[in-house]
Amino acid sequence: MLYFENDYCEGAHPAILQKLAETNFEKVPGYGTDPYCASAKAKICAACGCPDADVTFISGGTQTNAIVIASMLQRWQGVMAAATGHVAAHEAGAIEYTGHKVIALPAHEGKVSAADVRDWCATFYADANHDHMVFPGMVYISHPSEYGTLYTKAELEELHAVCQEYHMPLFMDGARLGYGLMAKGTDVTLQDIARLTDVFYIGGTKVGALCGEAVVFPHGAPAHFMTMVKQQGALLAKGRLMGLQFDVLFTDDLYTRISRNAIETADRLKEGLAAKGYRFYMESPTNQVFPILENSQLKALEPLAKFGFWEKYDDTHTVMRIATSWATRMEEIEQLIDLM
Amino acid sequence: MLYFENDYCEGAHPAILQKLAETNFEKVPGYGTDPYCASAKAKICAACGCPDADVTFISGGTQTNAIVIASMLQRWQGVMAAATGHVAAHEAGAIEYTGHKVIALPAHEGKVSAADVRDWCATFYADANHDHMVFPGMVYISHPSEYGTLYTKAELEELHAVCQEYHMPLFMDGARLGYGLMAKGTDVTLQDIARLTDVFYIGGTKVGALCGEAVVFPHGAPAHFMTMVKQQGALLAKGRLMGLQFDVLFTDDLYTRISRNAIETADRLKEGLAAKGYRFYMESPTNQVFPILENSQLKALEPLAKFGFWEKYDDTHTVMRIATSWATRMEEIEQLIDLM
Amino acid sequence: MLYFENDYCEGAHPAILQKLAETNFEKVPGYGTDPYCASAKAKICAACGCPDADVTFISGGTQTNAIVIASMLQRWQGVMAAATGHVAAHEAGAIEYTGHKVIALPAHEGKVSAADVRDWCATFYADANHDHMVFPGMVYISHPSEYGTLYTKAELEELHAVCQEYHMPLFMDGARLGYGLMAKGTDVTLQDIARLTDVFYIGGTKVGALCGEAVVFPHGAPAHFMTMVKQQGALLAKGRLMGLQFDVLFTDDLYTRISRNAIETADRLKEGLAAKGYRFYMESPTNQVFPILENSQLKALEPLAKFGFWEKYDDTHTVMRIATSWATRMEEIEQLIDLM
Amino acid sequence: MLYFENDYCEGAHPAILQKLAETNFEKVPGYGTDPYCASAKAKICAACGCPDADVTFISGGTQTNAIVIASMLQRWQGVMAAATGHVAAHEAGAIEYTGHKVIALPAHEGKVSAADVRDWCATFYADANHDHMVFPGMVYISHPSEYGTLYTKAELEELHAVCQEYHMPLFMDGARLGYGLMAKGTDVTLQDIARLTDVFYIGGTKVGALCGEAVVFPHGAPAHFMTMVKQQGALLAKGRLMGLQFDVLFTDDLYTRISRNAIETADRLKEGLAAKGYRFYMESPTNQVFPILENSQLKALEPLAKFGFWEKYDDTHTVMRIATSWATRMEEIEQLIDLM
Repeated sequence: MLYFENDYCEGAHPAILQKLAETNFEKVPGYGTDPYCASAKAKICAACGCPDADVTFISGGTQTNAIVIASMLQRWQGVMAAATGHVAAHEAGAIEYTGHKVIALPAHEGKVSAADVRDWCATFYADANHDHMVFPGMVYISHPSEYGTLYTKAELEELHAVCQEYHMPLFMDGARLGYGLMAKGTDVTLQDIARLTDVFYIGGTKVGALCGEAVVFPHGAPAHFMTMVKQQGALLAKGRLMGLQFDVLFTDDLYTRISRNAIETADRLKEGLAAKGYRFYMESPTNQVFPILENSQLKALEPLAKFGFWEKYDDTHTVMRIATSWATRMEEIEQLIDLM
Repeated sequence: MLYFENDYCEGAHPAILQKLAETNFEKVPGYGTDPYCASAKAKICAACGCPDADVTFISGGTQTNAIVIASMLQRWQGVMAAATGHVAAHEAGAIEYTGHKVIALPAHEGKVSAADVRDWCATFYADANHDHMVFPGMVYISHPSEYGTLYTKAELEELHAVCQEYHMPLFMDGARLGYGLMAKGTDVTLQDIARLTDVFYIGGTKVGALCGEAVVFPHGAPAHFMTMVKQQGALLAKGRLMGLQFDVLFTDDLYTRISRNAIETADRLKEGLAAKGYRFYMESPTNQVFPILENSQLKALEPLAKFGFWEKYDDTHTVMRIATSWATRMEEIEQLIDLM
Repeated sequence: MLYFENDYCEGAHPAILQKLAETNFEKVPGYGTDPYCASAKAKICAACGCPDADVTFISGGTQTNAIVIASMLQRWQGVMAAATGHVAAHEAGAIEYTGHKVIALPAHEGKVSAADVRDWCATFYADANHDHMVFPGMVYISHPSEYGTLYTKAELEELHAVCQEYHMPLFMDGARLGYGLMAKGTDVTLQDIARLTDVFYIGGTKVGALCGEAVVFPHGAPAHFMTMVKQQGALLAKGRLMGLQFDVLFTDDLYTRISRNAIETADRLKEGLAAKGYRFYMESPTNQVFPILENSQLKALEPLAKFGFWEKYDDTHTVMRIATSWATRMEEIEQLIDLM
Repeated sequence: MLYFENDYCEGAHPAILQKLAETNFEKVPGYGTDPYCASAKAKICAACGCPDADVTFISGGTQTNAIVIASMLQRWQGVMAAATGHVAAHEAGAIEYTGHKVIALPAHEGKVSAADVRDWCATFYADANHDHMVFPGMVYISHPSEYGTLYTKAELEELHAVCQEYHMPLFMDGARLGYGLMAKGTDVTLQDIARLTDVFYIGGTKVGALCGEAVVFPHGAPAHFMTMVKQQGALLAKGRLMGLQFDVLFTDDLYTRISRNAIETADRLKEGLAAKGYRFYMESPTNQVFPILENSQLKALEPLAKFGFWEKYDDTHTVMRIATSWATRMEEIEQLIDLM
């Protein structure tokens, strides 16, 4: 059985496991005050070109989104996001649970457009009754998006500009950030992201770690951020677990190198499927591939390969998601192409 | 430098790291639906004598407390806890953040008494205006308590009885449960706990794991518990990380065996310190030892050994906490006794 | 200056003020346990044909919506509403503040269609990952809607059916209910509403009262509803203030009679404006009239009459809202028609 | 039957009802933007000696407490209050519902001492782990307290000083403020309160109004306070109802004059009961009197007079509360004294 259902089905990069074993009996202080966290933070700051950034490690993506958003919004504000954004659709109301509205904007292949943000805000502030409504307080984007698409640098510049104009932080969910950075044709670097957003996170769970996301505040974290992390239940006693993993991932460009593997395997897959005549639901330059399959074929493949269901295409076709990752081997890809 | 500041300063039991490495490239589904979680759950159910219990893994203790409490309380209810209980004092308001009051009861060496619960409830329901007040909805206890003390089986029976009487679940925070179970003289077994509580958790973070607590609902979890876990941000994509750890810990009694080490080293320490004339702030049968030190001596020890500050005893003395763990070596204890 | 900006610009029906004065020095118990509340509840139950309904008085509409919704939803559920619904757009996030998502459905002239509800629910439950999403837990409708439109009895029957099918309560916001009941051509009675919804409220603030909405649970209120009302700050000490007002409004059909005035004045206005060639943004059978005005004319009218701004129609026209009420005098209408 | 159960059993001062009737058909804008609110605010600012204060009207006390506290606290902060304070004990968890802990301090006849606040804060900040705890963010006091007691000016100065020292606003719940200001022997004026607190409210519900409390921020309200009021459901459409009442109450010293009546009747009652040998649970200089009655006598009085149950004194005695108000007639007091 070939398994391509998601990009979190394996464990961690072996270098992480090795380092965990090597340092296992070192005694270090808790709650993220250990030397591995310190080292990882320093390396991430360097990689981002932000010597004064604040970096915090949180164990999962939904938690990170909820913590970042709830810590930066004022009570009367909501977060703007694409209607297809993870915070809008797939987090069981985690944002609303903290008391904030997710203001859904039209999704353009998973992305938010600066023009839509500007229109929404202009309409809002032009309404004489806007004091009776939820204020726009932040823009959430995911890069890569849930559809595997990427913002261009120009698009990020525009989003940055409209956020500045309306005094809103721009937050980038980077659960798959490595795959975005390594995609062919992208003109967006980690330094660009640190320059153009107010907070973003570097995904570990989907890019080589057992767990953990590195939240980066290029201009400094909100006051008492650590207490808010604790209040939302996310301050791990053994902070070393996440610090050490990011320390390994940001040593010798490991994060970059393993991300590239996901791109290369995804690109080969797209090429192979295209050669066999498959159509794709959407051009996605990262590690998620969305072929349109005939339902009969899908049924035939079921015992042989596991994909993610994406959505119904028409009565006889289905869009499926095939995800590669840092751990995908090229031979699995070739087997899959042969199979399909 | 001898390091005894807490019981989460090392990594994980080596058997866990080994299993993580062995299974690293197996592809398993996410969000706790993997075979390691299934196996761990089965073993925990067996150990608890509850074949139909629901078991869920959550990464840390504060998060577990907030999720369990918020998922079991009705909106008009609060949770009763000792004033010194972790949820009352040390979680940055994580319970209140979910909208619920922590009703503080007198702490008896860190413990809640059934008599206090009954008195409080009787007074509450006798008040004709109790509809204007927060209803008692749950009793939270920690075993061992934050002071290292333990409930007797008789005390748990009484708490169980008063909770039944007032239709409240009894919740046991078992962040250090292994150390409680292995303490000398305790008459409380895991099966007793499963019989006498409505929900409890088996601490992993402080007892051999990198992270993770196993929440056990002996009579079944609340409806949609998994969605609530997600909503509070605690549903890890790589659920295998926690399932696998508990699978190892509950294989061949590993959890029990490593817990015993913490007790044996703590007992030797108490014996050694007593022999040298030290007084203790409190008799604690588990892995936390609370000697009363002269401030001058404390200062002299500072460069040699690291303890946890507990509280001021008087103008010239301080209560310190020395914590042993599954990883403490007896030779460290002997060095510490010599030093003091 | 003619004033038609809204339907809450006057005080209360004189019969209410008179009764307040007559009973002013009677000493009655607080928090809604007084005889006026009891009498008003009995009259409302009778008018609804629901002898066992629970009735509660709450001072304003946003508060009522937030309390009803938060008291009936489970934590993992959101409330479905038209995108133009008051709870979705105009309550400053009051619903999200209680931790719940408002699931926006397409608005059909301000109304929710049963087909949209069914589609949304069917898609939701068909998604294998729906446990990671906000469950649909309630349907909110307003009758009249924010656009002055009304549901037909057949539409309510369909909404009732789909709510039953998906085990969701149906909640009707009746801030302007009187005007809906008295509209010409409606086939919906108060008894129909009590039969087809699980909770609704009878608006007082906009229909003759100084303040107050009467929440009716035809099949009984949620357990501990009063404590939840208190918890959300809405339990008035002098409950008599609202009980007495509804007691007057439901004596000798006063509520019905004064509602009819708003309809008659609005109908005359529509007729008069139509005769002068005005177009309307939307056919609204209740007390809100939405003429499309030329911007130049609007400017000319500004010193003479006050309307509510509704929305821009095109570059040279604007949609305005003219609201009549129980207190509108026909001569004001004639003056307005002459003016326009 | 003599009725002394509480101080909100009558309606409103007749001057209020008269003004409501006189102005009933004036058309004014909604949501507190009407001329009556403006006039009332100006008069309150003048009475407080704070020309630049922000004044907002909210319909009830619990709601006011919840809104003020939730709008001024940061997320990581709790509010300090006497264990007997209304927000701690009698609001069904309204404060916790907004996500904040009530930090209970010892009650000294219902009052908070500056020394306790300072000790608590000093201990808190001295704890190296205070980032894991709820920060003290505000001090709540009630004046008169729930026990009818009053702060002296010196006590308020001390509370003000400790709040300044720890950068916390001081909030005074003045549900019965008029009775506090008119008590014999008090040295605290409204201007003192405006000078020494950061926010307080002037109770209307218990002092002559049908409903309504006037929240005063002497140094200005938090940004977007109105939107937060709306979000918590407390922005009444017919704001005139409260503005007009406070406009009347602050015209020609009406608030002061009617408050004095409650004091004079309570003082006569205390004198009369003392003369007959009654003991009091507590010396209370305001409108609440707490005699200790024999249970047998209490039973005999039941058909003749209605008091509030306060608490059990011993097996044969009970503490009762007798409340006078702006509306109490001296002849009722004489009848009561005769009866007892």
